[in-house]
Amino acid sequence: MFSNILIVGCGLIGSSILRGSLSKKISKNIYVFEKSKKNISLIKKIDKKIKFLNKIDHKVSNMDLIVLSTHMSQYNNLIKKLLRHISSKNLITDTGSTKRNVENLINKNKKLKKIFIPSHPIAGSEVSGPEFGDKNLFKDKWCIILKGNDKSKKNQKKIEKFWKKLGSKIIFMNSIDHDKIFSITSHLPHLIAYNLVKTAIDFQKKNKKSIIKYSAGGLRDFSRTAASNEIMWRDIFFENKDNIIDSINIFIRNLKKFKKLIKNQNNSNVLKILKNSKKIRKQIINLKQDVSKPNFGRDLF
Amino acid sequence: MFSNILIVGCGLIGSSILRGSLSKKISKNIYVFEKSKKNISLIKKIDKKIKFLNKIDHKVSNMDLIVLSTHMSQYNNLIKKLLRHISSKNLITDTGSTKRNVENLINKNKKLKKIFIPSHPIAGSEVSGPEFGDKNLFKDKWCIILKGNDKSKKNQKKIEKFWKKLGSKIIFMNSIDHDKIFSITSHLPHLIAYNLVKTAIDFQKKNKKSIIKYSAGGLRDFSRTAASNEIMWRDIFFENKDNIIDSINIFIRNLKKFKKLIKNQNNSNVLKILKNSKKIRKQIINLKQDVSKPNFGRDLF
Repeated sequence: MFSNILIVGCGLIGSSILRGSLSKKISKNIYVFEKSKKNISLIKKIDKKIKFLNKIDHKVSNMDLIVLSTHMSQYNNLIKKLLRHISSKNLITDTGSTKRNVENLINKNKKLKKIFIPSHPIAGSEVSGPEFGDKNLFKDKWCIILKGNDKSKKNQKKIEKFWKKLGSKIIFMNSIDHDKIFSITSHLPHLIAYNLVKTAIDFQKKNKKSIIKYSAGGLRDFSRTAASNEIMWRDIFFENKDNIIDSINIFIRNLKKFKKLIKNQNNSNVLKILKNSKKIRKQIINLKQDVSKPNFGRDLF
Repeated sequence: MFSNILIVGCGLIGSSILRGSLSKKISKNIYVFEKSKKNISLIKKIDKKIKFLNKIDHKVSNMDLIVLSTHMSQYNNLIKKLLRHISSKNLITDTGSTKRNVENLINKNKKLKKIFIPSHPIAGSEVSGPEFGDKNLFKDKWCIILKGNDKSKKNQKKIEKFWKKLGSKIIFMNSIDHDKIFSITSHLPHLIAYNLVKTAIDFQKKNKKSIIKYSAGGLRDFSRTAASNEIMWRDIFFENKDNIIDSINIFIRNLKKFKKLIKNQNNSNVLKILKNSKKIRKQIINLKQDVSKPNFGRDLF
C-alpha cells in the first residue's frame, strides 16, 4: 500500500499502528521517530525490519504517510519541523483525541491543508507505552476521519484505506461534531472518574480512615479510568475545554436535581432515572461497544 | 454447622449464599422463602434438596439462621412477620448495603437486638436474579459485620464463622462508619454513573445525535455500573441519604474547582490530580480489589 511510513511517537497507539502495519504488510518500510530510549529498545524487539529516524530531517520527504501519535501538546513543534521538509507528495494523519485544535493548526498553512487528514481511532486503555501495543487494537473499533472540502479526495481515500487495513470501521465527521460528541462519551467520563478518586482521597485525609480497601463496591471501576496517562488527558482537557466545561455544567445541573430527588425520596422520578440507565447499557452492548458479561467478565485472581 | 438455614429472598446474593452453603455443607437443611415464581423454578434446578417455605409461619421458629437477602425496603414488613414466630433461639443476619437503617429497625425490639447481627458482603454485579448466583461470589471478598455490645458474643461468632465458610474476609465495624465509608466507595460511584448516563441521554435528545455508539472511549464503563438493580439502588440512596448528600456536595465542590483549573489551563495542579489518581489505582490493585490487567482484561467478541 505504501513504500515508506513514518510513525512519530511510538507508545501504546503508535506501536499498535506499527504492529498492525507489519502484520498487514501495509508498507514496504516502516520508520519510527521516538524520543524515549526505553521505548526505542522495546520497539526494536518487535521486529528487526523497523527503521529509526534520529531526528526530523530531509528523510521525512520520502515518507508516503506520516502518522503523528505523540501527545497533542507536541504537535505544534513537530509540525514546524516537518514543514521544513515535506511537500504536497507527502501525506499526514494523526491519532489525537480532540480535533478542532488540530484543524486550527492545519489551517494556518496552505500546504498542510491538502495533505494533513486528521483522524481519531477510538481505542486505547489505561496503560501507556509500546509494551502494551497490540496489532488488533483497532479491530472493529470506530476511527473518525475529519471531512473537509479543502482536502484532496485521493488523500482522504488513502487514509480511509489505511485505517480499514488496521481493522477499523470508518466514520467521517467534522471537527465541531467530533469534539462535542466525545466531550460527553469520553472526556467527561474521564474527568468525572478523576474527580471521584480525588473525592475519595480527600475523604481519607479528612477522616483519617483507610477506605481504598473497600473499593470493590464501585470505586475500583472509576480508578481504572482515572489511571490513564496524565499528559494525554491534560492535553485533551485543555484542547477541548469549552465543550468540556459545557458538559460539566450540564452534569452538575443534573446532579443537583438528582440530589433533590433523593432528599425528597421521590420514588417515581428516581426509579425513572435508574431504569432509563439500564436501557442505555443494553444499547451499548447491542452496538458492540462493550462485552455483555456481568462485571466485564472480570475474574479476580 | 447448622441444622436449618432459611434464605429469605433468593436473587443474585441469596442464591449465591444458597450455592455456597450447599457446596460447603453449612447446613443439614436449607429453606428458601422467595415470592417470584420465575425465581423459584430457577432455584429448584440448583439442587433437589432445597426446601421451600410458602409463607413466614411457625416453621421459622426452627431455623438456626435466617438470612435476609431481599431488597431493604421489604425488611420492615418481613421483620414484623418474623417477630410473631421467632425466639431468642433463632439467629438472623442480612446482606443489605446500608446498616444504620437496619440497626434502627433492630433497636425497636429487645428480642431482635440480641439475635439479629447485620452484615454486608461486598460482592455483586450489575445483573440480578438467581440465575447469576455463584458459590464463589464471596470468596476473598470483605464481609462487614456490625459490632454492638448488646449482641450475644456467641451469635456474633456464629455469623463470623458462617461468612468465613463462604470464603469472606471479615471486618467488624459500627453502622455509622460503615455508612460513611460506603457512601464514598460504593454509593457515590453508582450515583455518579447514573448521573453520567442521564447526562448522555439528555445530550442525545437535545442535539438529536446518536452518541451511544461512541461509548467505548469511557462511557461504557459507567453504563455497566448504571445498569445495576434499580430497586436495590433506590433503597440505598434513600436509606443512606444524609451521607450520600454530603458526598455529592464534596464531589460538586471538587468538580467546580477542577473546572476552574481547566478553564485557566493550570498545568501543575491538573497534572497533580491526574497523577495522584494513578497512585490510588496501584493501591487498589495491590489490595487485590481489582484485576491488574489493562481494560479489566476485557476482550471484545
